[in-house]
Amino acid sequence: MRHDSRQTDQLRPIKVERRYTKATPGSILISAGDTVVLCTASLDNSVPPWKKNDENPSGWVTAEYNMLPGSTSPRKQRRADGRSSEIQRLIGRSLRAVIDFEALGPRTITVDCDVLQADGGTRTLSITGGFLALLDTVLAIPETCELAEGEVFDPKKVFTNSVAAVSVGVVEGEPVLDLDYVEDSTAGVDMNVVMTGGGDFVEVQGTAEGLVFNRGMLDAQLELATLGIEQLTAIQRECIGGDWPL
Amino acid sequence: MRHDSRQTDQLRPIKVERRYTKATPGSILISAGDTVVLCTASLDNSVPPWKKNDENPSGWVTAEYNMLPGSTSPRKQRRADGRSSEIQRLIGRSLRAVIDFEALGPRTITVDCDVLQADGGTRTLSITGGFLALLDTVLAIPETCELAEGEVFDPKKVFTNSVAAVSVGVVEGEPVLDLDYVEDSTAGVDMNVVMTGGGDFVEVQGTAEGLVFNRGMLDAQLELATLGIEQLTAIQRECIGGDWPL
Amino acid sequence: MRHDSRQTDQLRPIKVERRYTKATPGSILISAGDTVVLCTASLDNSVPPWKKNDENPSGWVTAEYNMLPGSTSPRKQRRADGRSSEIQRLIGRSLRAVIDFEALGPRTITVDCDVLQADGGTRTLSITGGFLALLDTVLAIPETCELAEGEVFDPKKVFTNSVAAVSVGVVEGEPVLDLDYVEDSTAGVDMNVVMTGGGDFVEVQGTAEGLVFNRGMLDAQLELATLGIEQLTAIQRECIGGDWPL
Amino acid sequence: MRHDSRQTDQLRPIKVERRYTKATPGSILISAGDTVVLCTASLDNSVPPWKKNDENPSGWVTAEYNMLPGSTSPRKQRRADGRSSEIQRLIGRSLRAVIDFEALGPRTITVDCDVLQADGGTRTLSITGGFLALLDTVLAIPETCELAEGEVFDPKKVFTNSVAAVSVGVVEGEPVLDLDYVEDSTAGVDMNVVMTGGGDFVEVQGTAEGLVFNRGMLDAQLELATLGIEQLTAIQRECIGGDWPL
Amino acid sequence: MRHDSRQTDQLRPIKVERRYTKATPGSILISAGDTVVLCTASLDNSVPPWKKNDENPSGWVTAEYNMLPGSTSPRKQRRADGRSSEIQRLIGRSLRAVIDFEALGPRTITVDCDVLQADGGTRTLSITGGFLALLDTVLAIPETCELAEGEVFDPKKVFTNSVAAVSVGVVEGEPVLDLDYVEDSTAGVDMNVVMTGGGDFVEVQGTAEGLVFNRGMLDAQLELATLGIEQLTAIQRECIGGDWPL
Amino acid sequence: MRHDSRQTDQLRPIKVERRYTKATPGSILISAGDTVVLCTASLDNSVPPWKKNDENPSGWVTAEYNMLPGSTSPRKQRRADGRSSEIQRLIGRSLRAVIDFEALGPRTITVDCDVLQADGGTRTLSITGGFLALLDTVLAIPETCELAEGEVFDPKKVFTNSVAAVSVGVVEGEPVLDLDYVEDSTAGVDMNVVMTGGGDFVEVQGTAEGLVFNRGMLDAQLELATLGIEQLTAIQRECIGGDWPL
Repeated sequence: MRHDSRQTDQLRPIKVERRYTKATPGSILISAGDTVVLCTASLDNSVPPWKKNDENPSGWVTAEYNMLPGSTSPRKQRRADGRSSEIQRLIGRSLRAVIDFEALGPRTITVDCDVLQADGGTRTLSITGGFLALLDTVLAIPETCELAEGEVFDPKKVFTNSVAAVSVGVVEGEPVLDLDYVEDSTAGVDMNVVMTGGGDFVEVQGTAEGLVFNRGMLDAQLELATLGIEQLTAIQRECIGGDWPL
Repeated sequence: MRHDSRQTDQLRPIKVERRYTKATPGSILISAGDTVVLCTASLDNSVPPWKKNDENPSGWVTAEYNMLPGSTSPRKQRRADGRSSEIQRLIGRSLRAVIDFEALGPRTITVDCDVLQADGGTRTLSITGGFLALLDTVLAIPETCELAEGEVFDPKKVFTNSVAAVSVGVVEGEPVLDLDYVEDSTAGVDMNVVMTGGGDFVEVQGTAEGLVFNRGMLDAQLELATLGIEQLTAIQRECIGGDWPL
Repeated sequence: MRHDSRQTDQLRPIKVERRYTKATPGSILISAGDTVVLCTASLDNSVPPWKKNDENPSGWVTAEYNMLPGSTSPRKQRRADGRSSEIQRLIGRSLRAVIDFEALGPRTITVDCDVLQADGGTRTLSITGGFLALLDTVLAIPETCELAEGEVFDPKKVFTNSVAAVSVGVVEGEPVLDLDYVEDSTAGVDMNVVMTGGGDFVEVQGTAEGLVFNRGMLDAQLELATLGIEQLTAIQRECIGGDWPL
Repeated sequence: MRHDSRQTDQLRPIKVERRYTKATPGSILISAGDTVVLCTASLDNSVPPWKKNDENPSGWVTAEYNMLPGSTSPRKQRRADGRSSEIQRLIGRSLRAVIDFEALGPRTITVDCDVLQADGGTRTLSITGGFLALLDTVLAIPETCELAEGEVFDPKKVFTNSVAAVSVGVVEGEPVLDLDYVEDSTAGVDMNVVMTGGGDFVEVQGTAEGLVFNRGMLDAQLELATLGIEQLTAIQRECIGGDWPL
Repeated sequence: MRHDSRQTDQLRPIKVERRYTKATPGSILISAGDTVVLCTASLDNSVPPWKKNDENPSGWVTAEYNMLPGSTSPRKQRRADGRSSEIQRLIGRSLRAVIDFEALGPRTITVDCDVLQADGGTRTLSITGGFLALLDTVLAIPETCELAEGEVFDPKKVFTNSVAAVSVGVVEGEPVLDLDYVEDSTAGVDMNVVMTGGGDFVEVQGTAEGLVFNRGMLDAQLELATLGIEQLTAIQRECIGGDWPL
Repeated sequence: MRHDSRQTDQLRPIKVERRYTKATPGSILISAGDTVVLCTASLDNSVPPWKKNDENPSGWVTAEYNMLPGSTSPRKQRRADGRSSEIQRLIGRSLRAVIDFEALGPRTITVDCDVLQADGGTRTLSITGGFLALLDTVLAIPETCELAEGEVFDPKKVFTNSVAAVSVGVVEGEPVLDLDYVEDSTAGVDMNVVMTGGGDFVEVQGTAEGLVFNRGMLDAQLELATLGIEQLTAIQRECIGGDWPL
């Protein structure tokens, strides 16, 4: 049994608050147990510098990840580090994997994932919540942006799929789903899995933490992750309700 | 009449949520209208480097201020700028003005003020909320810290007073209290006033914004600020209830 | 009596040397007792980036402040810090408060205030001297710049007023004018006041240094500052003589 | 058939030059086709700062990764970027996974992987070559270091296993081993696999590049990687010959 | 006699490997005894920003110098320092001294000198090898670049001369040529001399290292340097063979 | 004849103002024609970090060089660049060449050279003036520092010689002494020579500026420099008068 009485294949309680702040239509406060992330997606009506010279430039999505200093104890210093940079590259890649940039048009969306409280799994929760913030910002484009002459913008075409993420790991020799900080710090293997709502893999990142792992253990973790992503996708869909584009 | 129907001497609705996050005892989510700031106060059981060589080193309080990128539209880039640095120096000075560092003992507390949503008055709300976070962290020292041998720690002795802050300004020729962003951007004068619960001044920072101001106008604004601070002090006191140390 | 025998309302001896260096027409060496600041104003025939797309871009004035390492003991390290950044923002705002940017035309002037010797009051002396450097650079525009076709440039129209600054404070319980370093380091309150030659306020920045202050004490300091500014304005006017534009 | 006529499960030709430079005993020039990496392992007889206060501090291994500007066309600018930081974190974790830090003793070894020529697979080749440089530096400790009093140093005990890495991917719908640059830039999936000589996983990092992938495709790639690592381990063992510690 | 049995006027053995890497036509691995430098020259079909507004912009040559961390013991940290910046400015000036920028046309060439192994004389060897890399990149322009309409490009016209460099110094009271690290660290004077193949001076940089030097000693060193440059020029010419442009 | 009517072997008028500022005993305002440099030497009663573990640590002298933004037209931006870093390394080496660090004792002196007005020759004037500032700070050690127990401090023993510097160059084919900016910008060769008062060389730095130079031209410039240094040494000696330690 896990230290918080969860089953090995059980997610922590997930809560999602849509439109948490008002500066942008895409603003999601998402929590998994005691991990809380604020995801906002800000739209800029321009294309990134390296697409500027294209004839019909398509859009772009980028992500930033940051832990607030008070989100953890002891306090985390407020400066960019290698870990944050690596995580925000992962989030960006994961979100871009389900976007059709032609359909997005010449726009750049930045998804900011700011961790208010950190109890393990911040990067995967950022992807799950970041997708929702991105979705809401895209859905609002017809009301918030002036379209180009002749442009027909269909938010549904922007998304080729939904995306969510979850961590799995091996704790005391047993594969478990959605590790909190206590489990994470004793895990022998730490794995982050990003999958589409359609059940395909976007990213698999498994790391031995003091304990190398064989193929059987790898397979067991991938199974758990697949189960977790199914539940997270259902939660995402419920949050958006009738606006769900897929 | 003001654009949101407030009286010239009326604050925006103030809400305070105590113990918003769990990583530190001092965690306050405070809002004034649509301005929302998360204030956390983290304790470090060490003294700043420049006090290290003192025989009986006393403590220190410092502050950091940051606007989340998605707190405003267009999105604010995630990098330290001169404005942030100036604001966090103001917050730090204001909080230190009511602390007895001998009574605090050899401890450093960092108060982080992260703006989740910005609609004017973020620096003054950071002071008002930051004081509460600082207070809760100090109140918890007896449970959270191992005291030095022979040390008698009395949270009430750490505070010589309470502190709060509010903005005033001149909008369309008339002095008004607690400006929101719309008012702030058209104000001819912009003034931030920090006062103790006892009614004395800690900081007065008034800046002409396109319009210089005479002594009469300065006096009218100081009056409004004094009224506002009285109400904010009452709200602070109510939030803390029986633990209020003064 | 003050430690250097001055009256509470007496300035230190002020000396101004006009056209101290030759690289720019606006070059002022100004001293108040042992505080010495070199103020130079350099003109650039372009507009700041954020005005580039305006149809008829107006001008801009910016300031930089720096203490030479040998200006103080112990030696000050040669790197930008929060204090310098805050001070140069104050100097810039103060100078801009008396400039008509339409009349200045599409030009940017940078006022550099380099402290050669620091004995208190460097930021206020930088404003008083910086205004003179700015004035001389503007007066020289007809000789040093090629005007745009059809442009009529009148230096007198560029200035809506003159500006000067002085510090006041509370030393041993008594309000005093123009603090030197010895007084500054024991003052209970430290206040910088920026005013126009016409007697209006541009900035009021008062800070409790270990001692909060009541309204009466604030008023007494504002009175002293007003007296000081009157004398500084007279000195500015005498330095410029017949070229004084107001 | 692949563009360079290789089989899908065929590595590029691997060459290893041991003791390429003289400043440190561990210096390996390794190439896989046209990718060339210089790996050097430098020993420092001290422990990292965060282990300084341990009673019997154990050692540490860290890695740095860098592409020389002329290693690629167009020229790569000479500055740290997020990609390099992420790669060097991967290399460091992979090497540390097979080290017993107690057996290493209070020493820090930095493994530098400088890419002289880049044609795909630089990060995995850095791990394969970096392990050899690390091994040679550890083997030389008895001759190059003064041991602590009473210390018995056994290089064989430092290594719990060997480690090597290889890339796999999906090119034109088919899983292939050890992608070069041409294949990498058209691959739909890009995966880096780090394994021990004993056949266990250390890291699995798979990324969809424009194409999400299902479980079957993931399994096929893991198979190919396992085959590649077996060959790389044999090459490593042959390079070190009788000194091989495992 | 010198510690490695060389005569006072004898160079270390010089080896040059042309076309060492493939990403650019100009790639030279050059060694003098145990000092090894990889010089690559990368061409960019654009002009530097400060020449962009010229009507017929001419080209530019710039250099970067870097020691790999493992090139020396103890390991050199991987960050720009004043010494590197000074050296790369010297290399750039030396190469530019023999280039006709009109004949080069609107192109920028960056010569990267990365030290793989450091045993004294890295900056002079970088100039000698860097010239060869630059030469090969220019010789390849007709095949690698699309010429502007009507442009006639003649590689021979780009070079007004060849350039090479060597160090001299005073070791144990005696002037010697081409110091290695052991000699360099005990030398009383350290001098770097850059000369053209035609026998004229491009740079003379002599520094007293603990021992000032008189005119006679200066003259003796200049004589040795002249002898060394003659030999290095012959080696350069032999390396390039029939392509030598002068 | 030169553009300012000087002979080819004639210095610009040199003026030296001793004890220009008060924060440190060594404060020299030195000018050569329109070039003006403020040199201050600040003493720190500690040794540099890399000497901290020596048993009887000796002292150190370091230098910093900076041009004020207003010292030149157009205005120079206020940030460290490669040129400044290279110059301050030259100044530091030159001053250290005449110091006995044992005799200086465990003290660090930083010589700051801040250019108030730049008209050519700023680096050589910084050395000539910097030596005087350094000298005055050392002479004052008996009054300003508490000596170590048993320490006998003799300022005369700290200096093994005096040091001064001057520029020479080739202008319109003719060697000239002490170039101003107009000459410097058209010079075919630019050379900086640092010599002791005893007539020996400390540094020789000659650079071809578009024109390589032969041995005869080099000799002619060295002759001029020797003449110039003799005069500068006499001016240094006169400035210090009876305190001159050599």
